[in-house]
Amino acid sequence: MSHDAKLLRERALAYHENPVPGKIKVVITKPAETADDLTLAYSPGVAEPVRAIADNPNDAYRYTGKGNSVAIISNGTAILGLGNLGPLASKPVMEGKALLFNRFAGIDAIDIEVKHKTVEDFITTVECIADTFGGINLEDIKAPECFLIERELQKRCQIPIFHDDQHGTAIVTTAGILNAVELQGKKIEDCKIVCVGAGAAGVACSDLVLACGAKKENFFMIDRHGVIRSDRPQYNNGEKPRFINDAGPKTLSEAIKGADVMLGVSGPGLVSEDDVKSMAPNAVIFACSNPDPEVDPALVAKVRPDIIMGTGRSDYPNQINNVLCFPYLFRGALDVRATCINEEMMKAAMNALRDLAKQPVPPEVVKAAMVDHLEYGRDYLIPKPMDPRLRTQVSGAVARAAVKSGGSQIPLPDCYKK
Amino acid sequence: MSHDAKLLRERALAYHENPVPGKIKVVITKPAETADDLTLAYSPGVAEPVRAIADNPNDAYRYTGKGNSVAIISNGTAILGLGNLGPLASKPVMEGKALLFNRFAGIDAIDIEVKHKTVEDFITTVECIADTFGGINLEDIKAPECFLIERELQKRCQIPIFHDDQHGTAIVTTAGILNAVELQGKKIEDCKIVCVGAGAAGVACSDLVLACGAKKENFFMIDRHGVIRSDRPQYNNGEKPRFINDAGPKTLSEAIKGADVMLGVSGPGLVSEDDVKSMAPNAVIFACSNPDPEVDPALVAKVRPDIIMGTGRSDYPNQINNVLCFPYLFRGALDVRATCINEEMMKAAMNALRDLAKQPVPPEVVKAAMVDHLEYGRDYLIPKPMDPRLRTQVSGAVARAAVKSGGSQIPLPDCYKK
Repeated sequence: MSHDAKLLRERALAYHENPVPGKIKVVITKPAETADDLTLAYSPGVAEPVRAIADNPNDAYRYTGKGNSVAIISNGTAILGLGNLGPLASKPVMEGKALLFNRFAGIDAIDIEVKHKTVEDFITTVECIADTFGGINLEDIKAPECFLIERELQKRCQIPIFHDDQHGTAIVTTAGILNAVELQGKKIEDCKIVCVGAGAAGVACSDLVLACGAKKENFFMIDRHGVIRSDRPQYNNGEKPRFINDAGPKTLSEAIKGADVMLGVSGPGLVSEDDVKSMAPNAVIFACSNPDPEVDPALVAKVRPDIIMGTGRSDYPNQINNVLCFPYLFRGALDVRATCINEEMMKAAMNALRDLAKQPVPPEVVKAAMVDHLEYGRDYLIPKPMDPRLRTQVSGAVARAAVKSGGSQIPLPDCYKK
Repeated sequence: MSHDAKLLRERALAYHENPVPGKIKVVITKPAETADDLTLAYSPGVAEPVRAIADNPNDAYRYTGKGNSVAIISNGTAILGLGNLGPLASKPVMEGKALLFNRFAGIDAIDIEVKHKTVEDFITTVECIADTFGGINLEDIKAPECFLIERELQKRCQIPIFHDDQHGTAIVTTAGILNAVELQGKKIEDCKIVCVGAGAAGVACSDLVLACGAKKENFFMIDRHGVIRSDRPQYNNGEKPRFINDAGPKTLSEAIKGADVMLGVSGPGLVSEDDVKSMAPNAVIFACSNPDPEVDPALVAKVRPDIIMGTGRSDYPNQINNVLCFPYLFRGALDVRATCINEEMMKAAMNALRDLAKQPVPPEVVKAAMVDHLEYGRDYLIPKPMDPRLRTQVSGAVARAAVKSGGSQIPLPDCYKK
């Protein structure tokens, strides 16, 4: 282990352990000092909101914390880049996500780790507890189970169910890709696109890029067995068949030749120097494997300086970071009591991110990003995580889209009216 | 509705609604202001505690909030005195309980409401999420399902599972009864005892009173069909048969004649003036039905001033209030990472309550109770809810009992050493 890695390890463990274990706690929002306070908070006064909610379930938003709460739920089967380490080991990640929800959007987020035998047990468990919350963020659940789980829960629950590793990643990545393609003077409709990786992120990114105008006949998805084609098995992943493309290429190297966009959501080093060299002029590469990208950004800069590049890393330009989206997406959804996160809401979040990147950057955001200068262009395609404008712009766009698309239960709050 | 009831209604609803809905929220306990903070809280630093917990599950207590957290879980089938109004309507009660856990014992308590089809679905759901927490408080689940649910979950989970309506009620009630019996100059072993009510509280109180020395042959449990005897059906409640007593009486009135103790955990007005008059000299009545007791305390004071009485109401002496127990019981259990709440721990909590009542009362506790004077005796048998000594004395007794009985995973913390 390097000195830097050792230092990070020590600092991270100390951060989690001291002065109290973990990263979040529960506090009281109402007075609870006198016996009279307690007659309101608990017996006998609490019977009144109980009766109100029994008469009108929507009163749960009026008298309880439901409307500002999100549960972050995982089974620990695909923890960050670490794999399947089980539910308990995933708890620091889920508590970390809760911290981000809280820090960036003031949401009361709590983590729930689910230890289950069958996938149906997982689904039943989440379905049974869902009404407690205003929304559910599914996290670090491995493919292909994650697709079935999310879809079933969306059917069975009346609150937003959102698998961030799919759609959060897709929203931020697609925002970056579309801005990069535009900067390169191209249209997404005309681009040849290669997606390396067919897991949770790969499938969701591909769906969103296609929904944003990319053409299926120019789109090649690649898994560990090569291009997804009809003349090969799809390996029990029900999502893959919709990406079948029999136009010609069978391997990554064949597909990437002449491609305008390469999106990597797979593993380190899968894309070679020759692959990069073979791409179309003024191409776009988003190599999001973390911590080690599909191809080294330094190599790309050297052999193909015309290419615009993004990664999952904070030490390179154009970091794809889900924190740009999920807190604000849920903030907007909760604020209009959305019953789901539909495609309109996801596109609205994505477009808000694209727009924000094009706006002049206030000095405090430049300072927080620890750089000298930020100006929309090849090295600044998407906003920075500490940008306070995300809260109003992304949440507002999502809330407006929810109301417009019929996904909301209450009218648009004044704060989001343009 | 009376003026007072209307006023309470308005105040209780306003308390729950403003300035924010509900009573609890989540906050961050670690710095999250800079990009560096976030590398520790989330990616990539969070991978370190994940790996540590994967290697050693006990590290979850070191690096996450597990060890200070309790989930309050209900299906809303027996909400306070209101009955089966469903999971969502129970949310204000569960959040109220979370507030009490937090206010009195600094525990990070959150509520989870479970909407389920079968009892097995409920059990599976709680089992699947249990590892997230340090302990689980089951609440407002109707009998007889509550017995099976608690027992199964205790078998399947490695953390304390505690149904407060059973055992919390039993601990506080038994503490009061034993002190009252002692003050009347009697021994529990010699008392004829009648328990009116055979639900969650009735069964648990009876079990604990019997475990504290009461004799089965002098103990009569009464449900809506009369004394539980072998010559009548037990109505599918598997708990009732162990209280069968064929010694003679068949009705409440027959059983209560000459009784030294009447414990009511049933419904209002079930015990008549004649029943009260027929009890043994220097008897004890705990009429815990809420808000209206089994018999009016004013009536008892008039016709039988020798009787010592307790109720569930705060406007009479000797209020049986579960808040005297559950926050401190869980505090002690969490502090030694207890794997269960065993009988030794429950008895320790009960004895700590009995002892504390006998100690001189500090002026601030008298003041908080809004009375002129508090001295151990017929009108002050058990501690008051705002007594700060509960936290050290009850939690300490529980923690010591857990360590002594083998129910703990770590040694006794210094703060609890006598």
